[in-house]
Amino acid sequence: MAEFSVMEGDVDIVIGALQSDLTSFMNEWRPIFSRFHLIITKDPHLKEELKIPEGFNVKIYQKSDMDKVVGSSLTSRLFSGYACRYFGYLISQKKYIISVDDDCMPAKDDKGFLIDVVSQHITNLATPATPLYFNTLYDPFRKGTDFVRGYPFSMRNGVPCALSCGLWLNLADYDAPTQALKAEQRNSQYVDAVLTIPRGVMMPFSGINIGINRELLGPTLFPGLKLAGEGKFRWETVEDIWCGMCAKVVCDHLGYGVKSGLPYVWRNERGDAIASLKKDWEGMKLMEEAVPFFQSLTLSPAAVTAEDCLAEISTLVKEGLGAVNPVFAQAADAMTQWMQLWKKIGCGPSSA
Amino acid sequence: MAEFSVMEGDVDIVIGALQSDLTSFMNEWRPIFSRFHLIITKDPHLKEELKIPEGFNVKIYQKSDMDKVVGSSLTSRLFSGYACRYFGYLISQKKYIISVDDDCMPAKDDKGFLIDVVSQHITNLATPATPLYFNTLYDPFRKGTDFVRGYPFSMRNGVPCALSCGLWLNLADYDAPTQALKAEQRNSQYVDAVLTIPRGVMMPFSGINIGINRELLGPTLFPGLKLAGEGKFRWETVEDIWCGMCAKVVCDHLGYGVKSGLPYVWRNERGDAIASLKKDWEGMKLMEEAVPFFQSLTLSPAAVTAEDCLAEISTLVKEGLGAVNPVFAQAADAMTQWMQLWKKIGCGPSSA
Repeated sequence: MAEFSVMEGDVDIVIGALQSDLTSFMNEWRPIFSRFHLIITKDPHLKEELKIPEGFNVKIYQKSDMDKVVGSSLTSRLFSGYACRYFGYLISQKKYIISVDDDCMPAKDDKGFLIDVVSQHITNLATPATPLYFNTLYDPFRKGTDFVRGYPFSMRNGVPCALSCGLWLNLADYDAPTQALKAEQRNSQYVDAVLTIPRGVMMPFSGINIGINRELLGPTLFPGLKLAGEGKFRWETVEDIWCGMCAKVVCDHLGYGVKSGLPYVWRNERGDAIASLKKDWEGMKLMEEAVPFFQSLTLSPAAVTAEDCLAEISTLVKEGLGAVNPVFAQAADAMTQWMQLWKKIGCGPSSA
Repeated sequence: MAEFSVMEGDVDIVIGALQSDLTSFMNEWRPIFSRFHLIITKDPHLKEELKIPEGFNVKIYQKSDMDKVVGSSLTSRLFSGYACRYFGYLISQKKYIISVDDDCMPAKDDKGFLIDVVSQHITNLATPATPLYFNTLYDPFRKGTDFVRGYPFSMRNGVPCALSCGLWLNLADYDAPTQALKAEQRNSQYVDAVLTIPRGVMMPFSGINIGINRELLGPTLFPGLKLAGEGKFRWETVEDIWCGMCAKVVCDHLGYGVKSGLPYVWRNERGDAIASLKKDWEGMKLMEEAVPFFQSLTLSPAAVTAEDCLAEISTLVKEGLGAVNPVFAQAADAMTQWMQLWKKIGCGPSSA
């Protein structure tokens, strides 16, 4: 395993606040988060004052801050509910972003030790990814493992890792029907592995627990796909899944990797899956069209930055999915709009 | 998880004997293997009588048996060393084959329980594989897990699983340079997961610990790629890696899945990695050409059986790799030859 240390100055922890009282959330995360700079973005529809315990290096952004940056007409369209975190992604100037939902607590590993999500995400991001060929012993850059016999030596350098997708113990990230059907099901399986999602392969990206190399991905994670009846629970949203597919296409095209697996967070109950079932499952139906579309997407050699890639994806989405459902055309427009915002505000090598 | 029971009559356990005294091997495996029919194939170069303890339902095949079936000129060309097990694949008439190297012992899981490799391989093979989209919580057909939010419902039926690739504790399946460089490295990481290798993705298939749906794969696993200086240790062979790539192409084309992960076996030391380094690494060099070739392979819609696919692969290998190295042209010929043998001897739905 490559040796490196987490540089506090390279990391922003971005938390989207959907609840006003973050006292227990912050106290539970204190041993892990207190070394780092935190960006807390408040859901613009949340009226109450945020409660945050002392002892953190934290900057809070609320509706008035968002209004100043993007204009009041855009704030609630872009940053409602879970999407408020994207404001943090927009204004961060750090190399790495770690983001965790505010209904998640630190988990313990299979030996009972507290899992340091920041350290594990940074390890995933700072060691190469191996999307060119699957390694059956998982991440060859973890301590105690390596490339399996038959892995071509020319592919062993791997590629830079741009995105690290962590997992969930207790309440896993299922959709509303699965959650409703298996109301008692809890994830108790700690799988001690990190792996690279191979090149050309799509996966359901979840925004609950992630690490991002912002320098590589630039504006790629953005609040694009908005459902008409978007809810305040994960199973009522698909914005993260949509931008995960965009990110995977960008990574595959630019030669970056996406890892999945460790670290786990402990995810608490929130919401009523049965009640969510009464909604019209719009997001899940959209996936039937969106996934095959992204699976078949190829970008042109002219796209050499994340911004180029997103501009192409936006055009292709409009052409390929725009007629299927207006929500896709809106997502394409949101991409373009986001890149304008990014150019105006975002900084760092990727937007240079 | 789907409920099913392992039908003893559906399973052959195939063991290639590279050592004559199988007493401790068989006794260690007794609790797991004794219910099943065993096919033991003896390396034709092994002169000593096999020692096998009593209490097994076992049929032994040695050089004279192979000679009768394939002719004496072919026996040592096809079935030397590790390749002797392919004789078992050829003559088995069961739906499933489980095969384990004779330097492997039963391993224990992370809770200290003996791992039943047969049961786990059959579980992997009898439940659907999900190569169309990656599920971040691994095999959704395992107990206690499911498809993650965003996984299209139209893809949740999965596809039949044709191949199950198990892993190794203690001595992992590294190549000679890795083994020599990290002589002290042992794999102690028990990763409690099974996953489907996505469609279109190649991986280093290892023949050490596998389960096969013979009805689906037919003659796909065959002793094709023979090195000039092929050794008697895994790190000196690539026949399994080569036929794993053929199998993956066949599965992708016919709509079958390949799983990797559980079950683990405990792999004991054998051979001298440093001594192996003095050989010319022919197999590893071949991978530099073979992997990109197989990654780019597409078969025609006319190929609708495993046999059709292999015939096409044989032609494409000759055209695409034949000029690169004569060993590839020989492998292509071996495919054709193997299919002739399979037609003559093999039985079961796939060759019907």
